[in-house]
Amino acid sequence: MTAFEFGNDIIIVDLGLMFPSEDMPGIDYVVPDYHYLQKNKHRVKALIITHGHLDHIGAIPYLINRVGNPPIYATPLTAGIIRQKLEEFKLQKSVMLNEFKPDDTFSFGAFNLSFFRVNHNIPDGVGIALKTPIGTVVHTGDFKIDFTPRDEQPAELHKIAKLGGEGVLLLMSDSTNAEQPGSTTSEREIGINLEKLIAKADGRVIVSTFATLVSRIQQVFDAAEKTGRKVAVSGYSMDKALEIAYNLGAIKFDKNIYIRLKDIGKLKDEEVIIISTGSQGQENAALGRMAKGDHRQVRLKKGDTIILSSSPIPGNERAIQNLMNALFSLGTKVIYNKMFDIHASGHGYQNDLRLMLALAKPKFFMPIHGERHMLEAHARLAEDMGIARDNIFILSNGNILELAKKGGGPVVAGAISKTKLPNSPVMVDGLGIGDIGEVVLRDRQVMAQDGMFVTIITIDSNTQKVIGDPEIISRGFMYMKGNDQLIKDTVTKIKDICNKHTANKLENWSPLRAALRDDIGSYLFQKTERRPMVLPVIIEI
Amino acid sequence: MTAFEFGNDIIIVDLGLMFPSEDMPGIDYVVPDYHYLQKNKHRVKALIITHGHLDHIGAIPYLINRVGNPPIYATPLTAGIIRQKLEEFKLQKSVMLNEFKPDDTFSFGAFNLSFFRVNHNIPDGVGIALKTPIGTVVHTGDFKIDFTPRDEQPAELHKIAKLGGEGVLLLMSDSTNAEQPGSTTSEREIGINLEKLIAKADGRVIVSTFATLVSRIQQVFDAAEKTGRKVAVSGYSMDKALEIAYNLGAIKFDKNIYIRLKDIGKLKDEEVIIISTGSQGQENAALGRMAKGDHRQVRLKKGDTIILSSSPIPGNERAIQNLMNALFSLGTKVIYNKMFDIHASGHGYQNDLRLMLALAKPKFFMPIHGERHMLEAHARLAEDMGIARDNIFILSNGNILELAKKGGGPVVAGAISKTKLPNSPVMVDGLGIGDIGEVVLRDRQVMAQDGMFVTIITIDSNTQKVIGDPEIISRGFMYMKGNDQLIKDTVTKIKDICNKHTANKLENWSPLRAALRDDIGSYLFQKTERRPMVLPVIIEI
Repeated sequence: MTAFEFGNDIIIVDLGLMFPSEDMPGIDYVVPDYHYLQKNKHRVKALIITHGHLDHIGAIPYLINRVGNPPIYATPLTAGIIRQKLEEFKLQKSVMLNEFKPDDTFSFGAFNLSFFRVNHNIPDGVGIALKTPIGTVVHTGDFKIDFTPRDEQPAELHKIAKLGGEGVLLLMSDSTNAEQPGSTTSEREIGINLEKLIAKADGRVIVSTFATLVSRIQQVFDAAEKTGRKVAVSGYSMDKALEIAYNLGAIKFDKNIYIRLKDIGKLKDEEVIIISTGSQGQENAALGRMAKGDHRQVRLKKGDTIILSSSPIPGNERAIQNLMNALFSLGTKVIYNKMFDIHASGHGYQNDLRLMLALAKPKFFMPIHGERHMLEAHARLAEDMGIARDNIFILSNGNILELAKKGGGPVVAGAISKTKLPNSPVMVDGLGIGDIGEVVLRDRQVMAQDGMFVTIITIDSNTQKVIGDPEIISRGFMYMKGNDQLIKDTVTKIKDICNKHTANKLENWSPLRAALRDDIGSYLFQKTERRPMVLPVIIEI
Repeated sequence: MTAFEFGNDIIIVDLGLMFPSEDMPGIDYVVPDYHYLQKNKHRVKALIITHGHLDHIGAIPYLINRVGNPPIYATPLTAGIIRQKLEEFKLQKSVMLNEFKPDDTFSFGAFNLSFFRVNHNIPDGVGIALKTPIGTVVHTGDFKIDFTPRDEQPAELHKIAKLGGEGVLLLMSDSTNAEQPGSTTSEREIGINLEKLIAKADGRVIVSTFATLVSRIQQVFDAAEKTGRKVAVSGYSMDKALEIAYNLGAIKFDKNIYIRLKDIGKLKDEEVIIISTGSQGQENAALGRMAKGDHRQVRLKKGDTIILSSSPIPGNERAIQNLMNALFSLGTKVIYNKMFDIHASGHGYQNDLRLMLALAKPKFFMPIHGERHMLEAHARLAEDMGIARDNIFILSNGNILELAKKGGGPVVAGAISKTKLPNSPVMVDGLGIGDIGEVVLRDRQVMAQDGMFVTIITIDSNTQKVIGDPEIISRGFMYMKGNDQLIKDTVTKIKDICNKHTANKLENWSPLRAALRDDIGSYLFQKTERRPMVLPVIIEI
């Protein structure tokens, strides 16, 4: 999410989500910090979406109302995907969703917006030009430059060149592949390779990719047509994506080529292609269930060819290894990107980025999208092309870049503001948005590490003597069975601690509780070198 | 760990550990299933170690006694590293550790052992030839072929060629890089690049790598000598590794070049190199602490150059991204492998693997070491070189390859046995080895996801009526504060469930406990879409 502000007007570009990192156990999604925009929601004029991927649209249902429920503007396919999300969250009536075409223009207060098509691995992506009274800002969105894309027109380079000719104040450009030399492989080449591999396969072919890689799905249908196969789909999100894209004409195929998954048994193996989710090793996605032998309609067998057409999202590497191990163990043939070019990134390589810089000829440059080292690599690229290092700004989340006329003159100066906006990851967990904080996360981590150990001590309120033996419940710590002696010793230890503390009458139980927590914690660590969360409960009767 | 068995004799090669996968929260290490060897421990003649990395020696302290405490054989540096581990675990007196040189030979029952040097990124690595009455098995260990290694001799290709000439029955060869075309970069080139980068740096240089990459550490000392800098070391494991390697002559440098970390302030910045641990993004390793500003002696600053000289272990990608983000944010210059060749893998690329196959000329081939898809890639490589697919065996953990003379004749046949040995990952957690099982892990996972919810209900044993309000303790589920209404409603719900169940007198509390667990679980899910572990405790008074 990026916010553009001029005078009283605010425009938001994209509103995506992030998947939680490993130190956020149990969290479903992370969405942007919205607090500044919430405070200024009456000034938010519009939310413009560059394309329909989750990291650009996924937070809409969670946050649209918190940022003032501005009208959303998106191209047709993007709008179709957003509409489905809004319906899922029963927001379709309360949120205004407008469609536009890349040649449309809009004015929102001080901003005049125009658009240019870019290539990506979902169709209908655009970059945005925001004209303001002090100059034009160009925001590329996610992009690559593909002269022979499969399912859309090449990026509208002429529009970018025109903007460059008129003068671009600031270019904000996608940095995801700023470390990759050369140019991105064209989707055309990927299509040809997929077709070759499918033509060569003896049995069934399962192509696994992201549901959101609409272009890849199109290519599989193309290959099916050319090789005389039919396509079935497995996976809820894949089904949905196909439905939306087909209905909007973003994916085109002869209806005869499509077959329902439950009917694949009626065809010969060499007539079948299954497109499935699960290429990132997700255990519960379609391919994951096939690999575990849990899939209701598809039982993998020797002779099946599985094509993994995606690249690993950082953090998923191990899950993908496990998936591949399972697939190989079933005797299936597995084809992945290291063997053939069967996946192209949707993000431009260095030559694509250079071309963007050369066409836009910006005064100021801000590398966006990607980890810090990718932004730095993109900055070096821009510097090599002649943009002064002082005119390149690498921002962190919450940073503000201020562009303003110097002392009222014609020259615009740029600087990262010393003010930082609030920037805490807002965590979504079940129905809660932002209600989970450090303490809850830390408790989850502690229990994940070594479990927990609850002891319930019944104490006579008059004499403050322990009644009977403390009860012990542990989970995730160790098996109680086979550790009778340790349990017995711990019970004795608990009683000793209680008796020592209640030798003089206690006003309240806090000091005893603290002592139990610490001493039993140390005792268990000494015996096991594990540190469960110790929870003493005192029941007074 | 691999076990070789002929008649009554068993030889073990390597005894390493693995790091836990994400579905093993809280587990320290995973060690091999030792149960077959434990049952046959009187037959185990020796444990031979190929080199000193943790995935080949790390399980020795945990398992050596469980597999019959066989004598260990290792080359000098490997033995030095093992000795230190044994001392840590106070096992140095009870375990017999023997040193050998690559030209030594041994006989253990039916096995005649000889060795050949290989290159890797720790010196003193060997491959093993096991001569048996029915033929010779060659086990490469981890290897690459480096004609210009820094700190050791090139691999002893002549010995492998001689074995090949005499006839190799089975080759077992390292597959880690079977998907990488070409040849491994020589350590010489890495050394030259490191020197260039260090020569160019204006301020301090911090080189971060694995403590076990002894060759890399040597190269940093070389570069220091040539660029007039001194080297300090940060990180316990790095300190230890340097001490062992220096004392054994495996790392050589002029003593003047070494400086203690606390003394770096006495030098100019451009005279300092710090070698540190933490290149995998480990938060508590030296570089991780520097990045967080928590390091006692080193505060990073603009002008520092940080060289990350290692490649990510799958699963660590995200942690490394976070580390790099933190380093860039501090304004330091970060140099990593995508920018320059500053790290070479210790595992041979396809050309190295082809050379091994060509020299050994085995009848049977078993790709080892690496994920299944790497083993498959290595198998394809061997097949392309003319080894029949039926003579290539890809084993899973617990599989047995049987090589035996066919019907007593001279021809040896090979097949994977239908018998599978027990093969469960043995988890080490604190002092426990193998005492953590599925239930404990699952409990940890549940609590990591959504925390836990304990309710303590006091019941009058005569009337079976609830006394007072149930007490509620939750951790990792949600903040109790601000959720008063939910807590209040849940308490009412708990009392209702109790009253409903005790309307007729209960013999025991199990049905009530089960009902509380299920109904409160569903109730909380309905209200929050979270599923904490619900633990009802009933106290009878």
